[in-house]
Amino acid sequence: MADDKQVVELHRKLKGKIAISGKAPIKNAEDLSTLYTPGVAAPCLEIQKNKALAYDLTMKGNTVAIVTDGTRVLGLGDIGPEAALPVMEGKALIMQQFAGIDAFPICLNQKDADKIVEIVKAIAPVFGAINLEDIETPKVFEIEKRLTEELDIPIFHDDQHGTAIVVLAGLYNALKVAGKDKSIKIALVGAGSAGYGIARLLHAAGFGNIIVFDSRGAIHKGRQGLLGQKKSLSEFTNPEGYSGTLAELQGADVIISAASPGSLPLETVKAMNKPSIVFALANPISEISLEQSKELSIDVFGTGRSDYPNQINNSLCFPGFLRALLDFKVRKITDEMKIAAAKGIADSVPESGLRADRIVPDTFDKQVSENIRKNIKAVI
Amino acid sequence: MADDKQVVELHRKLKGKIAISGKAPIKNAEDLSTLYTPGVAAPCLEIQKNKALAYDLTMKGNTVAIVTDGTRVLGLGDIGPEAALPVMEGKALIMQQFAGIDAFPICLNQKDADKIVEIVKAIAPVFGAINLEDIETPKVFEIEKRLTEELDIPIFHDDQHGTAIVVLAGLYNALKVAGKDKSIKIALVGAGSAGYGIARLLHAAGFGNIIVFDSRGAIHKGRQGLLGQKKSLSEFTNPEGYSGTLAELQGADVIISAASPGSLPLETVKAMNKPSIVFALANPISEISLEQSKELSIDVFGTGRSDYPNQINNSLCFPGFLRALLDFKVRKITDEMKIAAAKGIADSVPESGLRADRIVPDTFDKQVSENIRKNIKAVI
Repeated sequence: MADDKQVVELHRKLKGKIAISGKAPIKNAEDLSTLYTPGVAAPCLEIQKNKALAYDLTMKGNTVAIVTDGTRVLGLGDIGPEAALPVMEGKALIMQQFAGIDAFPICLNQKDADKIVEIVKAIAPVFGAINLEDIETPKVFEIEKRLTEELDIPIFHDDQHGTAIVVLAGLYNALKVAGKDKSIKIALVGAGSAGYGIARLLHAAGFGNIIVFDSRGAIHKGRQGLLGQKKSLSEFTNPEGYSGTLAELQGADVIISAASPGSLPLETVKAMNKPSIVFALANPISEISLEQSKELSIDVFGTGRSDYPNQINNSLCFPGFLRALLDFKVRKITDEMKIAAAKGIADSVPESGLRADRIVPDTFDKQVSENIRKNIKAVI
Repeated sequence: MADDKQVVELHRKLKGKIAISGKAPIKNAEDLSTLYTPGVAAPCLEIQKNKALAYDLTMKGNTVAIVTDGTRVLGLGDIGPEAALPVMEGKALIMQQFAGIDAFPICLNQKDADKIVEIVKAIAPVFGAINLEDIETPKVFEIEKRLTEELDIPIFHDDQHGTAIVVLAGLYNALKVAGKDKSIKIALVGAGSAGYGIARLLHAAGFGNIIVFDSRGAIHKGRQGLLGQKKSLSEFTNPEGYSGTLAELQGADVIISAASPGSLPLETVKAMNKPSIVFALANPISEISLEQSKELSIDVFGTGRSDYPNQINNSLCFPGFLRALLDFKVRKITDEMKIAAAKGIADSVPESGLRADRIVPDTFDKQVSENIRKNIKAVI
């Protein structure tokens, strides 16, 4: 692994990980008059008559805006729009290389949710889809909701939708390895974008017994002062009304932690039902190390780390998911699409190859995007 | 020349004239961890400490936003942001091919000047310069002024600055061919973005006797009801206070028309001083045809058309000008820079090659951008 200094030097050398390339050379006056004035007036007038033709005659149909305000970048917090740019460029690079998508970073010097909605609506004409990225909770939920209502292009919130889809994919295969079904008890640690998205999708996929924990304990109907996504979580999770702490929890079959190192008590892991499934997703340092997972005899163990087996990583999902949104001109993202995508990822590991340390496909498996795309096509 | 149907079909085939390309391949987990998480945290933190490092570690330093609201596209008027996109893509393609600039179209579904200022300020972190394009007057002047004051990156308004620079370049060489100097009388037809920009730059370059005409006649200090840029024009042009019509004007040495076909009376041309210089810039149909220019015995004749000699076209200027703005991290554009750029364009035609039908260089002359860049460097 390159160290920090080497990574910075690589970025200094590249001066940007993406660039604009031309799809048609301008070699002479004929080219100029066809691709620019006066010829270009003809496609302009066609689109003026019928806006939908922008999908056929311009870049719109293959172009995604990666929108952030830099308030919750990686695990680094609110580092601002300029400092967020290397991440957004990386994201655009992955979309280009893994799915042939033209994605462009929109890093906003604006933190107000209403203003962000207004800005994204204003810039939307050039884009076929919006990818919200690394915007702090809870405002990102409001932004996603309003944009989904008010725009006619799909709004993908990777921290919420992408993570949830890959977790569900990993869970499908982990349950096969462990020989368990949807009746399992799931402890979900963290109620931010990722935790909320995971809880919602797992519930939609038929997992009925999920208990979500934030730093104050279990989220349940009787808890006072719940707001926003936590109130929403209290309404469809924790059917038995567990109100204790995470450390006291007995008999979980699955623990999914989308929190931070130190937030997952080892006694909770020790008190799990066997075979035990733990996804420890904090990045770059997972809540439990690979060594600890062995000491604790966790049967199926996944993390967000590329140096461990079972990397539960957004990168498995977003290129193929956005490819499908663009290809099928999807207007609103549904739970069915997300579940279909999760199955596409899970099925990319053949049954014969499933093992406790092989529940998700390799990030570089080109088939994954195609499987996601095919499965989404089947549900729209 | 391709006809309209062929141009539309070419656009349908291309589905966008620009694309995003990756500057570094992601072939394995090591690449992913260097270009994306977790490695990318290191350049992010460097930029968080010192925002200026965005120029060294990201795409910012080579990236231009082409901003329009689609209200004054080509000669087509207010056709909307989607319909404006083919023009903006063409512009980005030219910047890429002629000057290696990464330009991205921002076509806004928003016409309010204050909102446009707010949006451009919000998206600015990713960009090293802003190119305002095809936004209606007079609001575009207000937008340019406020953005120039409030942002720390340069704001180039091509319809105003670019056209003016190429007109000044053509005028420098036309005067050499005609054997005249700055004491000439110039009639300038049109007081929109282009006319205003031309008048301001010619005045800054030392041309003292300019009379600007709008559809109601000469703009002069005594005229009632002048607002905005027309009021401003009345303050520094028309020193003799000419208050007649364009048709009545006698003894102009130069006529520059940035208006529309039909707006330039032939009697005004007939009443010019010899040798006469006429730039008829309306596009795609110039105010005077090449045949008419011969019948009228115009000595030096330029238009915006690529099928006539002496094409006075923005494309000669904006790639090299923006290249210089980025390379030298220019914060505010000055008149000195514009005059330097005009001289760079003019000097691209060697003295020995100057003729009445050869006052500006070829659009495809790669030396032009370099001459602009070199001349701007000398004045900053």
